[in-house]
Amino acid sequence: MPTLLETALSRLDELGQISDSPSHLVRTFLSPASHQAAAKIVAWMTVLGMETSQAPDGTVRGVLPGENPSASPLLLGSHYDTVIDAGKYDGALGIITALAALEALQQKGVRLPYPVHVLAFSDEEGTRFQTTYLGSHSLTAPLDAQTLAVTDASGTTIAQAIARDSPAPHAPPIRYAPGEARGYLELHIEQGRVLEEARQPACVVTSIAGQSRLTATLTGRADHAGTTPMALRRDALTGAAACILAAESLARSGPPLVITVGKIQIHPGASNSIPQSATFTIDLRHPIDATRLASLEALHASFTHIAAERGLELLWQPVQDHNATPCDPALTSNLVVSLAAITESTLTLPSGAGHDGVMMTKICPIAMLFVRCRDGLSHHPDEFASSADIETSIDILVHFLQSLPA
Amino acid sequence: MPTLLETALSRLDELGQISDSPSHLVRTFLSPASHQAAAKIVAWMTVLGMETSQAPDGTVRGVLPGENPSASPLLLGSHYDTVIDAGKYDGALGIITALAALEALQQKGVRLPYPVHVLAFSDEEGTRFQTTYLGSHSLTAPLDAQTLAVTDASGTTIAQAIARDSPAPHAPPIRYAPGEARGYLELHIEQGRVLEEARQPACVVTSIAGQSRLTATLTGRADHAGTTPMALRRDALTGAAACILAAESLARSGPPLVITVGKIQIHPGASNSIPQSATFTIDLRHPIDATRLASLEALHASFTHIAAERGLELLWQPVQDHNATPCDPALTSNLVVSLAAITESTLTLPSGAGHDGVMMTKICPIAMLFVRCRDGLSHHPDEFASSADIETSIDILVHFLQSLPA
Repeated sequence: MPTLLETALSRLDELGQISDSPSHLVRTFLSPASHQAAAKIVAWMTVLGMETSQAPDGTVRGVLPGENPSASPLLLGSHYDTVIDAGKYDGALGIITALAALEALQQKGVRLPYPVHVLAFSDEEGTRFQTTYLGSHSLTAPLDAQTLAVTDASGTTIAQAIARDSPAPHAPPIRYAPGEARGYLELHIEQGRVLEEARQPACVVTSIAGQSRLTATLTGRADHAGTTPMALRRDALTGAAACILAAESLARSGPPLVITVGKIQIHPGASNSIPQSATFTIDLRHPIDATRLASLEALHASFTHIAAERGLELLWQPVQDHNATPCDPALTSNLVVSLAAITESTLTLPSGAGHDGVMMTKICPIAMLFVRCRDGLSHHPDEFASSADIETSIDILVHFLQSLPA
Repeated sequence: MPTLLETALSRLDELGQISDSPSHLVRTFLSPASHQAAAKIVAWMTVLGMETSQAPDGTVRGVLPGENPSASPLLLGSHYDTVIDAGKYDGALGIITALAALEALQQKGVRLPYPVHVLAFSDEEGTRFQTTYLGSHSLTAPLDAQTLAVTDASGTTIAQAIARDSPAPHAPPIRYAPGEARGYLELHIEQGRVLEEARQPACVVTSIAGQSRLTATLTGRADHAGTTPMALRRDALTGAAACILAAESLARSGPPLVITVGKIQIHPGASNSIPQSATFTIDLRHPIDATRLASLEALHASFTHIAAERGLELLWQPVQDHNATPCDPALTSNLVVSLAAITESTLTLPSGAGHDGVMMTKICPIAMLFVRCRDGLSHHPDEFASSADIETSIDILVHFLQSLPA
C-alpha cells in the first residue's frame, strides 16, 4: 500500500497528465480536460468519505462533517486550472495536500471537531477569459452581468460557457455568506526563490501584495544616428534607460517593494535612427498600500524629472491598481505555530503573486502556506517542489488542523 | 527668364515628382523612375552644352571641356537615387547645384581652364540591393562577381538588373583611373542640425566618419515579477539600461564620438515577467579610426563590467566596421577659402553619414560642402533646405571652381 506521500505525488502526476493539449499542460475554465480533472478530484474526495458537489462554474467541493457538523467549517483548497504550458504544482498542490492532510488524520484515527470543506476552484489563472479568480469569485457572490459578458478568444461569453460547457449547468451554486466559514487556508508553491535562498521548505504568508500596473511613454525626436551630436539629441531610449534604472534603484532601496519593467517597444526601431519614442510597462508591488502608492508617486516624480532633463515628453498611463490583501492575524499566528512545530522556523513572507485568498477575504479570514519550489520557477513545465518539502507541508497542515478550536 | 536660383529650385521640384510610387518619393537603382530622372538630368546637361553619356549601371555624366580639354578634370556630383519616402534634396541638390554653378560661370562669360565632369550616380542609398555606393563604386572599378550576384527582394541579381533594366546595357562603362581626375567635390545637405545650431548656411566637411556596428545580448533569468525580490534578480533589461546609459556617457565625454542604440528586443516580453534576455544594436562613429576603435574597446569593457556585476552573460557581436575617409587637405583648404569668401565663416565638420566620396577617394582627392537643412531632417518628405542657403551654396561652388589652378 502506498504511503500518503506516494499517493500525493502520484496524484500530482495524474492531474499533470490531464491536458487540453497533447504537447503541453493546459487546463482552462470549463474545458474538456478541466472536466476530467474535476471528476478525478471528486473521486479522490469520495474515497475520503466526503460529500461532493460541483457548481455550475465547475468548482468542486468535498465536505467532511467532523465531530460537530453544525460548527463553522474551515475551507482548504486551491485551483485546478492552469496557464498555457504549465507546471503540475501551481494550484494542484494545494488541493492534493489538503486531501492528504485529511487522510493522514483519518489514518491516525483523529476526527476534527469542526467540518472541513476542500475546494478546487475552476479558474484562478484567467487563461481562457483573461479574468482571474473566477472560481473563488463565484463562491463569494454571483458573477455580475458585466463579468458574465466577457468573451474568450472565440467570442463565447462566460455566461454562454457556463450554459453550454459546464458539466453541471443547473446545479445549485456553491456559495458562502460572510462569517459562515471560520477561515480559508491555501497551500501554494512560492513562485519565488526566497525559501530556496533561506534554505527553508515552507513559510507563512503575511499578506498578498497590492499591485499597480502602468505604461510609460517617452517621446523625443528621431534623428540620424551619424549626424546628430550627442548634445543635440532627444533620445527616447536613453531616457527610458534612465527611468528603468531609477525604478530599479527605488525598489532596491525599499524591500519588499518590487518594480519590474517587463516590456519595452521603441519607434522607429532602426539601428541607424535615434529612437523617437519608447513605451514600457511598469509592474509595482508592495504589501502595504500606502507604501505602494507613495512609491508610485516617487517613481512618477523621478520619471518627470528625467523627461524634463532630457527634453522628452512623458505619458504616464495607469492600467490597474489592486490593494494589498492582508492575511488574518489570528489564523496566520496559528499557522506560524504549526510551521515552527514542524520546521523550527517562523519565516513569514508577503506574497508578490495574487491568489484566490484575495477573493476569499470577502467571506472569511484567510491564511496561506508557501512551499519552496526549485529556482522559484512557476508557470513553466520545469516547475518543481521536492517530495521532502511536500511531505513537510502536509505535516504542517496536519498540525494546523489539529490546533484549531472546536 | 527665370534666375539661376529659380531654375535650380524648379529642377528640385521636377526631380522630386519623378517617383516609382504615386504616394511618395522613391527612385531605386535602374527603376523606371530612375530612367526618367536620368533622362531629365541628361537634358539639363545638354542645355549647358555638355557632352553626355550614361553607363550600363545608369550613372550619368556630362563633360564640359574648358579651356584646356586635356587638363585633369574636376568631378562634381551626387546621386539621383533615393530612399523610400524620401525628400527631394538628398542627392539631387548636389547634381542640380553643380549644373547651376556651371551655368552661372557661363552667364558671367567665364570659361574654366580645366574640364569639369558632372556625375549623377545611379545608386548611393542602396535601397534596392541593400548595397550602398553602387554608382560611385562602378566608376572606380568593375563590380566584382560577389557584388553582381547580390539579389533584390524579387531575387533579381545586380548583373541581371543591369542586363535587363538598364537603358544602356551595352554602353561603355564610365570609369576613372587613379590620378586621372584632379578631385571630386560633392555638395550635400548636412542631415544633422549642427549648421542650424551654428546659424550657418554651409560648412566644409573634414572627413567622413568611420562606423562600427554591433549587436549586444545580455542574458539573465526570467522570473516572476511579483515574487522575486530585487536582490535575487538577474534582470537583462535593467542590465541593458545600464549599458545604454554607459554608451551615452562615453559618447558625451568625447565629441564628435556618437553612439546610438536604435533597436532593442527583450524576451519573454510580458509585463509580469522579469526579462531573461535583451538584444540591442550599437552604432558607433568617429572621424578618427584609432579613437573609434579605442571607444569600442572602452564600451566593451564597460558592458563586460556591467554584465559581471549583475550576473548576466554578455554576447558581443560585431556586425560591420568602416574606416573613416579623410577629405583631401589641399582641396578642402580651397573649399574653406571659398566658404569664407561667401559666408565669412570657416566652419568645418566631420560627416557622420556616409557619402559617395568614400568610394571616390580610391581614384582622386575629395572635398565636400554641407548645406544646412531644416531640423537636420533627411530621408523624410519634410526634408528642406532654404532657397537662400541653396543660393549661397551655389555661390560657394562658383567661387571654388574659379579658385582652382589650370
